[in-house]
Amino acid sequence: MSVSTAAADQSVCTPLPVLGRDVTVPLVTGGEVAYAALDYAASAPALQRVWDDVAAYAPYYGSVHRGAGYLSQLSTDLFENARRTVAEFLDCRPDDQVVFTRSTTDSLNLLAHAVPADCQVFVFETEHHASLLPWQDARVTYLDAPRTPRQAVETLERALADRDPYGPALVCVTGASNVTGELWPVRELAAAAHAHGARIVLDAAQLAPHHPVSVTDLDVDWVAFSGHKLYAPFGSGVLAGRADWLRAAEPYLAGGGASRKVTRREDGGVAVEWHDTAARHEAGSPNVIGAYAIAAACKALTEAGWDTLVAREQHLVRTVRAGLAEVPEVRILSLFGDDAPRVGVLSFVVEGWNSSHFAAALSAEYGIGVRDGLFCAHPLVRTLLGSDPQTQGECGAPEAAPGEKSLNAIRVSFGAGTPDEHVERFVDAVRELVADGAKWRYRTEDGRCVPAV
Amino acid sequence: MSVSTAAADQSVCTPLPVLGRDVTVPLVTGGEVAYAALDYAASAPALQRVWDDVAAYAPYYGSVHRGAGYLSQLSTDLFENARRTVAEFLDCRPDDQVVFTRSTTDSLNLLAHAVPADCQVFVFETEHHASLLPWQDARVTYLDAPRTPRQAVETLERALADRDPYGPALVCVTGASNVTGELWPVRELAAAAHAHGARIVLDAAQLAPHHPVSVTDLDVDWVAFSGHKLYAPFGSGVLAGRADWLRAAEPYLAGGGASRKVTRREDGGVAVEWHDTAARHEAGSPNVIGAYAIAAACKALTEAGWDTLVAREQHLVRTVRAGLAEVPEVRILSLFGDDAPRVGVLSFVVEGWNSSHFAAALSAEYGIGVRDGLFCAHPLVRTLLGSDPQTQGECGAPEAAPGEKSLNAIRVSFGAGTPDEHVERFVDAVRELVADGAKWRYRTEDGRCVPAV
Repeated sequence: MSVSTAAADQSVCTPLPVLGRDVTVPLVTGGEVAYAALDYAASAPALQRVWDDVAAYAPYYGSVHRGAGYLSQLSTDLFENARRTVAEFLDCRPDDQVVFTRSTTDSLNLLAHAVPADCQVFVFETEHHASLLPWQDARVTYLDAPRTPRQAVETLERALADRDPYGPALVCVTGASNVTGELWPVRELAAAAHAHGARIVLDAAQLAPHHPVSVTDLDVDWVAFSGHKLYAPFGSGVLAGRADWLRAAEPYLAGGGASRKVTRREDGGVAVEWHDTAARHEAGSPNVIGAYAIAAACKALTEAGWDTLVAREQHLVRTVRAGLAEVPEVRILSLFGDDAPRVGVLSFVVEGWNSSHFAAALSAEYGIGVRDGLFCAHPLVRTLLGSDPQTQGECGAPEAAPGEKSLNAIRVSFGAGTPDEHVERFVDAVRELVADGAKWRYRTEDGRCVPAV
Repeated sequence: MSVSTAAADQSVCTPLPVLGRDVTVPLVTGGEVAYAALDYAASAPALQRVWDDVAAYAPYYGSVHRGAGYLSQLSTDLFENARRTVAEFLDCRPDDQVVFTRSTTDSLNLLAHAVPADCQVFVFETEHHASLLPWQDARVTYLDAPRTPRQAVETLERALADRDPYGPALVCVTGASNVTGELWPVRELAAAAHAHGARIVLDAAQLAPHHPVSVTDLDVDWVAFSGHKLYAPFGSGVLAGRADWLRAAEPYLAGGGASRKVTRREDGGVAVEWHDTAARHEAGSPNVIGAYAIAAACKALTEAGWDTLVAREQHLVRTVRAGLAEVPEVRILSLFGDDAPRVGVLSFVVEGWNSSHFAAALSAEYGIGVRDGLFCAHPLVRTLLGSDPQTQGECGAPEAAPGEKSLNAIRVSFGAGTPDEHVERFVDAVRELVADGAKWRYRTEDGRCVPAV
């Protein structure tokens, strides 16, 4: 199969080199097999190029900012250049700030910290918890799951029309769902937000690794993404966008680096002047290697070319969807339907199977790493499964009997480093497991399903 | 000089291998020289062992927690084992929690977030901003700089005796000053805190890389440190200690990983059940490589042996102090005097020199990387310099005329990877610069002093 699909266009069919591509793992059925990492939506392997850049830099690592030494100055320059590379990667506006955080979760918590006190926030229930939960202290309106992109825009417009028109407002929306992989109508949602005087932040955690993101074209006010999903798993993330709210907010973390001047006051207290650049929210020694790794990934993806990357990933998406369509027991979870544009992230349930059990068998019998659960998007997955919100799917729960609803789902996700063989093996494995059942028995251990050896 | 000092005890004189030990840098006076990294107190180079462990693990990197694949389960185990390694390294109590953060700054901000609402906080003005500033929302008492360890304990005891005795209280104190390197009487301060019903957190950012830290022996309630100062610069830090306040607090970050169950409420809102383990404060994908790197450093330092490491570092401290004592223009900054026990961190000013200019000359003419400034401990440095709190030392400010007070200081710091040659070169360079002046002219660029070429 890999020969025939690889024939047409060589550039479409060559994955970018990633770490771990030669790693083999043992099978419970005997022998070893090359590991198929199909959990990119949680964490992608490092691009070889990112690793090589980090490895080349590591001996030159030094303290940044006030260090006077050569390596400190070099590291400071690399760190500040990483900011510029990210701004370019995201096609930011000239006045936008790029703040290095630890992850998308951290970026959105930072923005939640920075919204004006009276800000109204609008967020769909379909968001990842990182986008759904940071706003709890604000005046949040949770919007029901739309079933078409158009309905998403209409739902938002209705909610914004009802809002108090005088205060600040923020819409938070994902670019690509971490459950269904479906693209959201970001440009249209941004237009709706702005038409009602609201701002919009784009959760690009699942979009940026798969698709070009232009802050300018999409006209979003902020964008957040994570290094570990962008082939740069070194503990860094990004929040980029409008500087005004960030400058007006109290520093996200209090400490050195964010403080320009600290003095004792006459009353015994302490007075602080804070920076108003990105450093305001980056207290503590910056994660230089993490920022440098993100910049290396941005460059590598840009140089590989988005047309090629997207074409190749869409080819993989088609392979997976065509393969699963041949297994009637498989139900793919979808908000927007079969024709919706999507990235390489797809969730499904298998009739008669406990999802954790199924995922464990994919790992132990085929060397395929997927994910099972509710994917940190509980309301969305429950809506898609039609399950009782009071019931939580759990690993090791009894298998759903035929006809019963699954409480968990299985997610397969891939990207620039995925060879055809991985998704082909996955499709074959699903077909085989459904037809023949698992070859082994599994039990629960520390909340995970593992072979009962 | 290196021959004679290296003679006595080989084990004392062998630095641990670190990255960058072969890096050469250009000199403005021509040629290249091996870089002498003497800014460990800001960021230490990675131990070769840490790098090797990270490089060996990197191909096996996978998503943690709900990933069903082999590498996900391996990565989850490594991440959770890293917690246990850190707990062992710190000699924690059985019920203590180890939370992975991004840095000491982040750890102390997390604790500040977790203190009970009515908590009274006691902190010396001599702390690093990371320890000084996170408490601004609490009822903070800033304590004046003590001039002996005994005075520190007495000052704290007096302040605690005056406090409202019924509410919760927290003392925050450094283990080793990031400016003077002097050790603080942590055990005695902990005893004083507990005698008055207060808790205590130890800022071990500058202690842990140089000295064994036992939570149990010191009887501190929490300890915070950073990976990047502990030879593991991959964006991680640690807060370890009592679980109760951490469990009772709202999650530090809202998002996935911290949330056990999220449901829509009937009123349209969102209900969240949070974890009460360390995960409660670790929302988002954990920085697995960062945590693994810290664990590797803990193991490497433990295996090298603290007796050997401390003996070697004290030998370097003696070399630097003896060398600087021969230069009457040099004034070493000290709170506790010449006899105070200290780690390999030392700040000083040079009569007649602007500190930034001096640091720039050490870099450009000798390949030595030190730090100049106020070291994110503004009140302490100003107290030590006796400078007007309204005057901020700045890089590129005119050189202080002979007899004038410096506004900035120079800090030299080193550790387990520092060869004798680096500190010997430093001492020789100071002597030469003071005697002969700089060979080059320097100017200000982006707030840094650089050669005026």
